Amino acid sequence: MSESTTALDLLDAWALLTPEERAEGFRAMSRDEQDDFFLSLQTDDQAELFRAVRPGERRLWARLLAPDDVADLAQYLEGDPLRDELLSLLDEATRNEVSALLAYEEDEAGGLMSPRFARLRPDSTIDQALFYLRRQARSKEHALETLHYAYVLDGEQRLLGVLSFRDVFAARENATIESVMTRDVVTVHESMDQEEVARIIAEHDLSAVPVVDDEGRMKGIITVDDIVDVVQQEATEDIQKIGGQEALEQRYMQTSLPALVKKRAGWLALLFLGETLTTTAMGAYEEEIASAVVLALFVPLIISSGGNSGSQASTLIIRAMALGEVGMRDWWRIAHRELLAGIALGGILAVIGVARVALGEALFGTYGEHWLRIGMTVGISLLGVVVCGTIAGSMLPFVIRLLRADPASASAPFVATLVDLAGLVVYFNVAQWLLRGTLL
Amino acid sequence: MSESTTALDLLDAWALLTPEERAEGFRAMSRDEQDDFFLSLQTDDQAELFRAVRPGERRLWARLLAPDDVADLAQYLEGDPLRDELLSLLDEATRNEVSALLAYEEDEAGGLMSPRFARLRPDSTIDQALFYLRRQARSKEHALETLHYAYVLDGEQRLLGVLSFRDVFAARENATIESVMTRDVVTVHESMDQEEVARIIAEHDLSAVPVVDDEGRMKGIITVDDIVDVVQQEATEDIQKIGGQEALEQRYMQTSLPALVKKRAGWLALLFLGETLTTTAMGAYEEEIASAVVLALFVPLIISSGGNSGSQASTLIIRAMALGEVGMRDWWRIAHRELLAGIALGGILAVIGVARVALGEALFGTYGEHWLRIGMTVGISLLGVVVCGTIAGSMLPFVIRLLRADPASASAPFVATLVDLAGLVVYFNVAQWLLRGTLL
Repeated sequence: MSESTTALDLLDAWALLTPEERAEGFRAMSRDEQDDFFLSLQTDDQAELFRAVRPGERRLWARLLAPDDVADLAQYLEGDPLRDELLSLLDEATRNEVSALLAYEEDEAGGLMSPRFARLRPDSTIDQALFYLRRQARSKEHALETLHYAYVLDGEQRLLGVLSFRDVFAARENATIESVMTRDVVTVHESMDQEEVARIIAEHDLSAVPVVDDEGRMKGIITVDDIVDVVQQEATEDIQKIGGQEALEQRYMQTSLPALVKKRAGWLALLFLGETLTTTAMGAYEEEIASAVVLALFVPLIISSGGNSGSQASTLIIRAMALGEVGMRDWWRIAHRELLAGIALGGILAVIGVARVALGEALFGTYGEHWLRIGMTVGISLLGVVVCGTIAGSMLPFVIRLLRADPASASAPFVATLVDLAGLVVYFNVAQWLLRGTLL
Repeated sequence: MSESTTALDLLDAWALLTPEERAEGFRAMSRDEQDDFFLSLQTDDQAELFRAVRPGERRLWARLLAPDDVADLAQYLEGDPLRDELLSLLDEATRNEVSALLAYEEDEAGGLMSPRFARLRPDSTIDQALFYLRRQARSKEHALETLHYAYVLDGEQRLLGVLSFRDVFAARENATIESVMTRDVVTVHESMDQEEVARIIAEHDLSAVPVVDDEGRMKGIITVDDIVDVVQQEATEDIQKIGGQEALEQRYMQTSLPALVKKRAGWLALLFLGETLTTTAMGAYEEEIASAVVLALFVPLIISSGGNSGSQASTLIIRAMALGEVGMRDWWRIAHRELLAGIALGGILAVIGVARVALGEALFGTYGEHWLRIGMTVGISLLGVVVCGTIAGSMLPFVIRLLRADPASASAPFVATLVDLAGLVVYFNVAQWLLRGTLL
């Protein structure tokens, strides 16, 4: 609202600027603005600025970051000499915290958490707690990640309960922490997958969740603002995989053209190889096509209908799995539902398909005396193909998850490739059955 | 961690239970557990429980909810007699707050915000602020949504600055609010779309953002835990649309079969009608197919490659747009990038395609003396079709956004349908050009 509109403007324009323009904009800010600005950047942008500033300035920036943010930056700079420089600039206590965090995988709870949180003893009074919290709030050196909650730990660092600031404020000053704290705490394990952590935080509407180890000792906290990034990032990865490609590591505009091609070429070539089976399959029906060319005309229509219905089913199931609404044990109920949905959807397309053939015949006489048999072939095939699509699309995510891969790889193109092959077999078999003795 | 593991267990199992089992589990809890449990539920589940409890108990539950949650519930119950009962159970002040919130659209900032936040005057002292905040924290009747921040307003309710609790704690007791507050506040406008609000909160790593009107008067706050739900929900809608269907209103397992078919049938039938054009297009080349049936065998392979490359491009662009990484003005840069990506990807598939034809000829003599011309036809068509795919896939989201619809409707099936048609035209024209005088 006031002096540093420049900082907000710069952040808004960030994605569109060249590295030089970014460094220039950054230098034009006051020191205070620079602090806030640097802290609000994503890890990749922080790395870029960290590289751009003078070596003498780097210590200031390194010490400004919270330990979990330093750990993210160090992970991002893996293999870069800047990484060691970054770690060497920290004070010893922080370096120890960062080293502990670097032992976790990036996508598990331990890799997301901050080791700095407000700790209280169960037998302290509210008055003592307030004194301690004020001192903590004033400390610049080892600032707490958040002041929303204070955690009550026993001598072995085991988590006994939690107090919100509202609880601290609302309690009488001589009450003991133990008598005021909430004992019923939602926790996550240090090795829990970040997607699961996000689900728990969203489900319970928490602003922070404590991370514990096997013995129930508290190791850190994960705050909901870190979770927003996780949720965005996981959805982005899923959407990119659903599109039939590997997830990008950076934003689309920041991904180089060779990297972009590399992420797409693998799946595209694999699907292409799978799809060459359709050529083989159609080769088996070459004779039928030669005697009734009209059969070939409906091939794209029929196989694409299977692909479309499969793509609908697979995206529904992939997303429901990612949100934890659907688990492995639901496969049978879902197969049943999707069978019925496939019959209904296939029936609708069959009616439109037959009507399309009848219309072509009535207006232009396109199909000749056997138009009704051709129409029935198209209609019955559509019903079969759409059912193949809904079943393949809904079951493929389960199969992939059973193989311990990401169900999101059951992409629209993957399902379409499977169903194209099934669709051709269904179509030509229906044709042989209905047209034998007339067109064939 | 202690007595109410039942409540956490029930929440974990929630999605899998019948309404009767849910009500039963709920009744088995203590009153305190019921409170926490009810508050942690999503709106649709709250509505279900609200309906299940005795009319006499409903007042208790209605008064437990914050005004923004009551507004969500009332919006959910639109058209149901329970809605009026819900509103009639509130005290007058809350009813006024809820009515004001109901004037906003569900998916704009005003519809997400809570009207209850901590207000301070610029000329108060920290000591006075602490006194006021403690009183606020103790009030059960009109509890504040959050105590992370206090907002400094002038006499006309215009937002002047913000204090975090850390600031309040860290300041000297006789300092004025004005001297301690941060003036540089990120705000959102009351009519801003919730997706944009989520982007701003994520970008600036905020735990809450104030909502202001045209005159800069503060109307409420949006906290980051509401945003996690928004981000999840928006991603779900996008993923479902990318699958080629309308977004569901409820979870997959809770959507009835007729509703599920209805959400899918519209797009499926529309895409089917679009795809019937491929039959017309292939009809135009009926003569060519009759004289060289081998041409028909490659049709599924070629059109699916275009669809797959288009699906990759459209999902990348849809997601980058949703995250605000890409705007309308980037269309030309993206068209350029995707043209180059299409040439690279199409080139790779062309090489594999020609190799496939050569291999078929070498092993089985499938294609006869003209195998090289057939191979070249397939290879050149693949290059053309994949470029059509990347361009159509990347530009369709821009076209749809220009028409003020959701770019996520540029679904994989929609792009595939467009590209199927283009692919057929490319393929048969290349065939006419290369095979004229030999096979044709």
